[in-house]
Amino acid sequence: MRIALDAMGGDFAPEAIVKGAVIAAQEVDPDTTILLIGKEDVVKGLLQEYGYTGNSITVINASQVIEMGEHPTKALTQKPDSSIAVGYGLLKMQKADAFCSAGNTGAMLVGAMFSVKAVEGILRPSIAGFVPKLSGGFGVILDVGANADCKPEVLEQFGELGSIYAKYMLDIENPKVGLMNLGEEEGKGTMLTQAAYQRLKANPSINFIGNIEGRDLFNDKADVIVCDGYTGNIILKLAESLYDILNDKGIHDPFFDKFNYEAEGGSPILGINGNALIAHGVSSPRAVCNMVLQAQKMASSKISERFQKKFSA
Amino acid sequence: MRIALDAMGGDFAPEAIVKGAVIAAQEVDPDTTILLIGKEDVVKGLLQEYGYTGNSITVINASQVIEMGEHPTKALTQKPDSSIAVGYGLLKMQKADAFCSAGNTGAMLVGAMFSVKAVEGILRPSIAGFVPKLSGGFGVILDVGANADCKPEVLEQFGELGSIYAKYMLDIENPKVGLMNLGEEEGKGTMLTQAAYQRLKANPSINFIGNIEGRDLFNDKADVIVCDGYTGNIILKLAESLYDILNDKGIHDPFFDKFNYEAEGGSPILGINGNALIAHGVSSPRAVCNMVLQAQKMASSKISERFQKKFSA
Repeated sequence: MRIALDAMGGDFAPEAIVKGAVIAAQEVDPDTTILLIGKEDVVKGLLQEYGYTGNSITVINASQVIEMGEHPTKALTQKPDSSIAVGYGLLKMQKADAFCSAGNTGAMLVGAMFSVKAVEGILRPSIAGFVPKLSGGFGVILDVGANADCKPEVLEQFGELGSIYAKYMLDIENPKVGLMNLGEEEGKGTMLTQAAYQRLKANPSINFIGNIEGRDLFNDKADVIVCDGYTGNIILKLAESLYDILNDKGIHDPFFDKFNYEAEGGSPILGINGNALIAHGVSSPRAVCNMVLQAQKMASSKISERFQKKFSA
Repeated sequence: MRIALDAMGGDFAPEAIVKGAVIAAQEVDPDTTILLIGKEDVVKGLLQEYGYTGNSITVINASQVIEMGEHPTKALTQKPDSSIAVGYGLLKMQKADAFCSAGNTGAMLVGAMFSVKAVEGILRPSIAGFVPKLSGGFGVILDVGANADCKPEVLEQFGELGSIYAKYMLDIENPKVGLMNLGEEEGKGTMLTQAAYQRLKANPSINFIGNIEGRDLFNDKADVIVCDGYTGNIILKLAESLYDILNDKGIHDPFFDKFNYEAEGGSPILGINGNALIAHGVSSPRAVCNMVLQAQKMASSKISERFQKKFSA
């Protein structure tokens, strides 16, 4: 298996990424190769500096870098040899089984749409996030920012995408799908959630349990939480801020420690022809390593192929 | 000053409400009277049971009760002598300076629109909630559920309503208004937030500081957080659930203890011709007492009159 990793993306790149790759090289399966994409001399220099002498990492040259603040579409057009463009090129040519980056989120999303593209039948690919559950494990919430405005049929597909991810990546049999709403009763909510409710309810391929509320985020009502990207982004950033607040206060607890974004690694882009993951810009080596391991599991669980099988006519 | 209180509304009514009124009677200003509305024999019996002998509470008879699960409009039409209808009647006739209830939220909202009505010029009255700030005090977030779907001009007015409330009730001079969004940069967000941003920015009567994100809920970026009622409801319920989670874990902290809904008492309905407050159905006597004190401050701060002055042509 080959996991492509953008060495140049993130606030602490390339150092934190290369360090993360070195850790990951010890933890991936024996037959997995990490394709570390970036300026070859820089990346090789760092590998040497960190004393890496194994053969699980292959450096692939990319002469350009898309910076964190750049306009995604413009940057991808102007920088065809950027690490993100090269990574997606490998994914498209099936020279990589997954691609992950802690770089420019917009460029990762636009790059996916330009290169591997959305799975036929998928209206809007989605970025999924993870929320820790009080009873253990994680739930998946989507969308968390790729699609600020959504149509009801898009939310319905999020329920399907999330269900497949939860089943094969979080090992939840028959995952419960909840619609984030302002009340539990059917008929509550915005015009969007009211219409989405009816579609989710009528969809035989998911286990829809109805509306859930803000207070249900961390309990066991739903394993898959469906909402538009505006709402999901706010929820996820709010939840993540709790870790920092508790940490600052010196309060440590196994449950709240799971709010640390490092725990899960990256946020997968679901619904594209390939497995892609985006991590926080501030990602530490540990977070980068976890993203690589998550990418490996996505590839071996054939997540992208499962979407293709389900949605392509 | 006369504060009307619905004795019959709430999961633990009338006992918890009457107990709350008895506590409040000790804490309100000497010239304040609590008008306790409900079935006279029941309420008077409870006052006797709790040993109340003062003269700060006047019982006003209302023979009917709107239950928590009833349809608001139907219930108000069919029960003209319900405690909520009687309360709003007193507010409309200016025989009460404020009215508060822990009962049916929908009926409280519909009752406001039927009786005292929205202030002329106000597009949609709003229910405001409160979020504790790490630096101390509270911020105000609106809407938290009265208006699931909002138009940009409605969000603009929420900024104005919240600013007046924050200034006179939370004693924040020149309150900072933030628009809850999925990114900080201008141009980010949904079609709604993009349009609302431009209106808030152009409004000279508020101190608009731009977009804020989910992670900014508890910091000092904004004193007034503007969002649609769907989003605000989810945020508020999520924040409130943290208190229960921490409490269950035995984690106590002055900041997180402020997440206890009891701390602030009630959620004001802003933008109507009168001061009205809604409390949680589960309200304890302490929460009821705090709502009465909050109602007293709303009346003495002339919150409703300030809205009338600002918005009426």
